[in-house]
Amino acid sequence: MSPGSLASRITRISGASQTEEDDLLAVEEPLEIRLGYEKNGERASSSISITMRTPGYDEELATGFLFTESIVRRPEDIAFVKPCGDNVVRVELESGVDVDLGHLQRHFYTTSSCGVCGKASLDALRVAGASALSADGISFDRATLATLPGRLRDAQRTFAETGGLHAAAAFDTAGKLLVLREDIGRHNAVDKVIGALLSEGLLPASELGLMVSGRASFELMQKALLAGMPLLAAVSAPSSLAVQLAHEFNLSLVGFLRGDTFNIYAGEGRVA
Amino acid sequence: MSPGSLASRITRISGASQTEEDDLLAVEEPLEIRLGYEKNGERASSSISITMRTPGYDEELATGFLFTESIVRRPEDIAFVKPCGDNVVRVELESGVDVDLGHLQRHFYTTSSCGVCGKASLDALRVAGASALSADGISFDRATLATLPGRLRDAQRTFAETGGLHAAAAFDTAGKLLVLREDIGRHNAVDKVIGALLSEGLLPASELGLMVSGRASFELMQKALLAGMPLLAAVSAPSSLAVQLAHEFNLSLVGFLRGDTFNIYAGEGRVA
Repeated sequence: MSPGSLASRITRISGASQTEEDDLLAVEEPLEIRLGYEKNGERASSSISITMRTPGYDEELATGFLFTESIVRRPEDIAFVKPCGDNVVRVELESGVDVDLGHLQRHFYTTSSCGVCGKASLDALRVAGASALSADGISFDRATLATLPGRLRDAQRTFAETGGLHAAAAFDTAGKLLVLREDIGRHNAVDKVIGALLSEGLLPASELGLMVSGRASFELMQKALLAGMPLLAAVSAPSSLAVQLAHEFNLSLVGFLRGDTFNIYAGEGRVA
Repeated sequence: MSPGSLASRITRISGASQTEEDDLLAVEEPLEIRLGYEKNGERASSSISITMRTPGYDEELATGFLFTESIVRRPEDIAFVKPCGDNVVRVELESGVDVDLGHLQRHFYTTSSCGVCGKASLDALRVAGASALSADGISFDRATLATLPGRLRDAQRTFAETGGLHAAAAFDTAGKLLVLREDIGRHNAVDKVIGALLSEGLLPASELGLMVSGRASFELMQKALLAGMPLLAAVSAPSSLAVQLAHEFNLSLVGFLRGDTFNIYAGEGRVA
């Protein structure tokens, strides 16, 4: 049993049959991220996020979250990351790292007068420092993309046990999965992958694609963009705003990837 | 085409074949909820939430959100709800309604010293006024539960178009779907259903079950509990904390509901 699953006694019904069985559940527990930083020459500390997540790789989740929220920009910004009890991770930034908690995503969409809209959400990304990716660079073979869902599934230990976890993975042009992480929340699985890439000095990951087990939302595309990953491939449907973001920032977006059948919603030039 | 979908030009790949086609995407746009209330004898106003949602039934989404966050407790608490532009909903509370924005869920899990954990999340629900449901009352026939996924699917207009939307529905013991709502976010689909029930004076909905198209998380179980709905049925897996909540607050939880095959994780007494 992996640390992401928990045994539970259930009743299984199938037509007229009824049996008592032990089953495995995907673990869901809150994680608090506490940030330590320098403010006016003194050390300060804030609890900046509480998210429901599946335990495991909590340090990567915290660093990936801070990176995709534009609070941490380089691995050198972080002095240390350490767990503090089971469900708290403390991230201490180096002195001299400028922290603007106003960058936190929940503030992104609000504007004083015009209200909020998809356009404002895209503009907010620009304000946060994101710029369109270059059109040059790598491409992914169709045949390689077709192998990804199978590779993801094979590698998903906990999903096989519980049926309840999302997965995200960074893959190269040969289709090799460099980092795969699972979580009950899609955004957390992606933060864990990006946190791992950041720790290994691999960001911006301009030669890697991002694969996700579910749908492609605005939030996931935003994370791929900030990590500099030029292609996002999803097993399920993308949203309208995910497609708009891909067009505006020149990302490639593949959806309904199921074997050799898939849709390209944006950035077709990177699919060879 | 329903208002929840948007046309987009895509490239469809199937083996060696490649075609350009028009496709429909599930719409994702931010919605801001602004709350007007009385504070120290004067009217005050706060932007209390921005969520990515699929447009449609925004007033229900706002009232359902406020109810499941324990800010609104009865339909009479609300003076009026009205859209303010495309992506803002304004909810004005009656004078004399006591508002404690500290009740907002994002504050639920934080405690000053002991950190956060699943247990603290359950305790926070009690602090917010939730209590265990009565063991008496209604039960749902197995045969009725078995019909739900098909009924949900038949009723999901937008999903059929885009493949990208979650659905939630309130159903009675005869299996009739009283309210069905769709959204790109599961929690939003549930808030829309609960908002509709609140507006119609049907809360607590002690004789209705809640059906969801995806997985059952802590957050969804919490919403069912606050709406007084004794049974939640999900097409996919529940999380560990959803099952814990169901046990502690005496809710029934059915998962992997696919025709006449399903698992009962808690509250078996309500499945006849």
